[in-house]
Amino acid sequence: MEVVGSASELRVRLSPSRGRLVGFVPTMGALHEGHLSLVARARRQDEVVVVSIFVNPLQFSQGEDFERYPRPLERDLALLRDAGVDVVFTPRAGDLTPAEAATSVRVRGLTERLEGASRPGHFEGVATIVAKLFNLVAPARAYFGEKDFQQLAVVRRMVRDLDFAVEVVGCPIVREPDGLAMSSRNAYLSPRDRGRALALSSALLEAARDWTGDVEATRTRLRTTLGSAPGVRLDYAEVVDPETLEPLEGVVGTPAHALVAAFLGATRLIDNIRLEHDAADG
Amino acid sequence: MEVVGSASELRVRLSPSRGRLVGFVPTMGALHEGHLSLVARARRQDEVVVVSIFVNPLQFSQGEDFERYPRPLERDLALLRDAGVDVVFTPRAGDLTPAEAATSVRVRGLTERLEGASRPGHFEGVATIVAKLFNLVAPARAYFGEKDFQQLAVVRRMVRDLDFAVEVVGCPIVREPDGLAMSSRNAYLSPRDRGRALALSSALLEAARDWTGDVEATRTRLRTTLGSAPGVRLDYAEVVDPETLEPLEGVVGTPAHALVAAFLGATRLIDNIRLEHDAADG
Repeated sequence: MEVVGSASELRVRLSPSRGRLVGFVPTMGALHEGHLSLVARARRQDEVVVVSIFVNPLQFSQGEDFERYPRPLERDLALLRDAGVDVVFTPRAGDLTPAEAATSVRVRGLTERLEGASRPGHFEGVATIVAKLFNLVAPARAYFGEKDFQQLAVVRRMVRDLDFAVEVVGCPIVREPDGLAMSSRNAYLSPRDRGRALALSSALLEAARDWTGDVEATRTRLRTTLGSAPGVRLDYAEVVDPETLEPLEGVVGTPAHALVAAFLGATRLIDNIRLEHDAADG
Repeated sequence: MEVVGSASELRVRLSPSRGRLVGFVPTMGALHEGHLSLVARARRQDEVVVVSIFVNPLQFSQGEDFERYPRPLERDLALLRDAGVDVVFTPRAGDLTPAEAATSVRVRGLTERLEGASRPGHFEGVATIVAKLFNLVAPARAYFGEKDFQQLAVVRRMVRDLDFAVEVVGCPIVREPDGLAMSSRNAYLSPRDRGRALALSSALLEAARDWTGDVEATRTRLRTTLGSAPGVRLDYAEVVDPETLEPLEGVVGTPAHALVAAFLGATRLIDNIRLEHDAADG
């Protein structure tokens, strides 16, 4: 495994890989089983596996946890070595976001709701850096976790709209044995909040189990349940179209998606689940 | 020469060229010697030469000449065949700018002055389509004329900021024997306005000849000359830093660039010239 610290070195390192199938997993590090599931999928499918570790300052809003975001680099590299990764790209912040940079990629509509409403500028930061990484790595496939469901939708939209020659692969959420969606931010939780955080996945799993297509009932129940869960400060609970992420209304026969965001103490967590009629039978 | 009408066909046609050096000349058609100088340069340097012809609706502001912009496709194709082009990409508007597209590329600062101030949204339209074309064609080099000097600066900035693996090659303005910068829009000019349009290149050539580094004197003279030229309605005349396109002040020892835009009747023309101290000796 080779660790490459600058964009120019990365180009040199990857130039012999042109023509080979490159699989790419962009991350912010602090890796968990969710990330490793993406890497494993790339390792199975692609000839060359590239992982980036970059805590992207552009996607943090004012007052968020950019400074204290965990950066356990040695541990991450050991995990990636074990996972059979070929190249790890660990750019310094100044390298990918120099002061003189003036270009950004914006996806309208999709980015204005949910996470976009709560985190101004977040998705412009994501789209801009993902576009840069795609241009640097030139992957045939890029892997994203469904935990960041809206991010996945934004990246798909950007890839389609800007004609990137990249197949975007969405991978299922990996959960702790008790149901909590894996997240690098779970490390922030106190033991008490870690317990209370279960309310998110429980409410979603219940919503999926009981789904009949009644959007209003599901949304109300999510909001009621999470609004009264001890120690949980709900940011949003929505039932949306899985592609446009527009809120649905009434009773629907098509698949829908439930997304929630909530604070446990100072820690903001998100989770989501697919709502489909078959699930009610299962 | 192969003419390809859709993005998906283009990918198929170019896939055997992966690993070969592709030179790309994006155009809006209505080709003249300026465009052909770009094609000739690509033909000399690159293994595969791709030209796109696409009148990009995104880069026309409200009330501009999108509808009446000339589209002499058969003549353009004949010129490109004679020039030894390998692939001509002629997408339909709906193919590159579908209604559901929501992503745009924006370059701050550089795009807000001069053409950007006069043509709102123009450079966002340019940057977005150029990004798409770069992703579709995957060129090693892309050729742009210096007649659209600000556009060239915007594309260079975007390529640097988003890490496109493309070398942007700027090529000198090609002028008519009497000095008028070649432009597809010259075809709009009445014989009388065609004569009067010479005021632009004459004023610029004079400014370059007499350049002593005195920004204020040069700017004032350009504005006075063009402000009183018969039939010329001046939009702007500026002396700027050639890279940032910020207006300069006072007396400078570094290279500068003079840019002008003016209407002749309903036709808007632009032109520019490099100002450097050596030029005063030549």
